[in-house]
Amino acid sequence: MQKNSVKVSMAVVRRLPKYHRYLGELIEKDILRISSKELGKIMGLTASQIRQDLNCFGGFGQQGYGYNVTELYKEMANILGLNKEYKCVIIGAGNLGQAITNYEGFRRKGFNLMAMFDVNPRLIGNTIRDIKIHDILELENYAKENEIVIGIICVPVVNSQEIADTLVRANVKAIWNFSPTDVKVPENIVIENVAISESLYTLTYLINEESLDI
Amino acid sequence: MQKNSVKVSMAVVRRLPKYHRYLGELIEKDILRISSKELGKIMGLTASQIRQDLNCFGGFGQQGYGYNVTELYKEMANILGLNKEYKCVIIGAGNLGQAITNYEGFRRKGFNLMAMFDVNPRLIGNTIRDIKIHDILELENYAKENEIVIGIICVPVVNSQEIADTLVRANVKAIWNFSPTDVKVPENIVIENVAISESLYTLTYLINEESLDI
Repeated sequence: MQKNSVKVSMAVVRRLPKYHRYLGELIEKDILRISSKELGKIMGLTASQIRQDLNCFGGFGQQGYGYNVTELYKEMANILGLNKEYKCVIIGAGNLGQAITNYEGFRRKGFNLMAMFDVNPRLIGNTIRDIKIHDILELENYAKENEIVIGIICVPVVNSQEIADTLVRANVKAIWNFSPTDVKVPENIVIENVAISESLYTLTYLINEESLDI
Repeated sequence: MQKNSVKVSMAVVRRLPKYHRYLGELIEKDILRISSKELGKIMGLTASQIRQDLNCFGGFGQQGYGYNVTELYKEMANILGLNKEYKCVIIGAGNLGQAITNYEGFRRKGFNLMAMFDVNPRLIGNTIRDIKIHDILELENYAKENEIVIGIICVPVVNSQEIADTLVRANVKAIWNFSPTDVKVPENIVIENVAISESLYTLTYLINEESLDI
């Protein structure tokens, strides 16, 4: 990849998983070559945006040929870090924690879910898809000893900051937070707050947009 | 509200639920008045962005006073359409469907979950939090007869487009799609594709960003 000292903007970063997904869908349809114009059409972007985005990482396209879909897909997977393994734990073994355990994008090779944690004595000791549910009191030691990289928070709002603090003490690199409030972490920790409600409220806004008197 | 013929950009729309959430958290902390500067600090925006965003809807602030938190919270709820009732159905009664049924943001007044649907004979006829699980074959008729507004798709990728088409035939206004692929709908239908994996892959990108040779 070509060197480029400019930090990639979050707007571009958030489009990268979309490139990865759309390129994967093209491969499934046996489309092995695509122009920036065609790719833009599928993704709802202009050809120029596509070229600008990919130029942040060195380009990959060839004038008059377009993009080799398989190569670009592989490059995109590398850029997203999907060629590596991540040791993960889920905190909160309720429906949401279990749904994530079963989630397609999560079950792909690379996300190594090592354990789940919960406070509920009825859940502790059980296994879900061969993943054992531990007492939440064991979280800090377990995560330290097993060098957990990603902690996934699926607990109610009231407990989420405490869990995040525990994960930070246990030296995780990143927190994927599904509790419906932002958790605060030091700057060196990567945080993604999923905020499912925000997507729902965007939906209700859009349902009402035409009747909104603005 | 002041009239304003310019359509609000999606970037602003996606920030509206955040305003709603942060204002709610301020009320819980008994903070009843806030300047655009302070609100911006909490939300990671500049004071000028806050003023610009809120001006799309007529302003609400008062020079030298700032914003009345409770009033702005109520206005924001109205703008988001959270003062109305929405009849909803969930398609797919697995862990994810059940997690959404239990989700805090969803259980608030206004989202009236009327029924769930599944193909699994072991689930059909059961109830979850008093919500009955119906045979998926009944979806179209049920949604038509009960004038369902929002269909929530929690089925695997392979079935999601078919379910979306059924919901469109049944005249829903909006689809909240949790299956990890975009579904296509006519322009008059509101669609939110949640794409949980994209958030996860953004996380892995950010974990690796510093070591990425760009």
